[in-house]
Amino acid sequence: MKYAAKIEVSLKPGHSNPEGETTSRLLVELGYKVQAVDVSKLYTVHLDATSLAEAEAKAEEMSKRLLANPTKDNYTISVAEVK
Amino acid sequence: MKYAAKIEVSLKPGHSNPEGETTSRLLVELGYKVQAVDVSKLYTVHLDATSLAEAEAKAEEMSKRLLANPTKDNYTISVAEVK
Repeated sequence: MKYAAKIEVSLKPGHSNPEGETTSRLLVELGYKVQAVDVSKLYTVHLDATSLAEAEAKAEEMSKRLLANPTKDNYTISVAEVK
Repeated sequence: MKYAAKIEVSLKPGHSNPEGETTSRLLVELGYKVQAVDVSKLYTVHLDATSLAEAEAKAEEMSKRLLANPTKDNYTISVAEVK
């Protein structure tokens, strides 16, 4: 069966986030009442698996092996079957 | 009141997505049954507004003015109040 795994990779708190800081400053300069901006990356991985549980396990593995850096990144995974 | 607007900016279909293609190829080389990977950027904007409707309207404006390029990007917005 076909699944789509959405894997959001974001910086752990305390890590420098220059893109978010710049975006926040620009939005304030444009007149918006913005306190902060977080920027993260969202991977949507289209994969084959035999069950939702297997797809979730594979997405977890992919995050650890390739997509996220455990030293500096947090990640969250949500998997849905594609009909 | 305080709101968090999640704004996902992704490439329109048909635009070249080299990062997704490379990620997909690497995952296949690692042994995963992956067909394709889409990569998008997720901004979480922390902002003040007087209502959910105002926060949504501001997030829409920010997307058009700064965060997304209407020529090549699609964007989706979801706003929630932060208690």
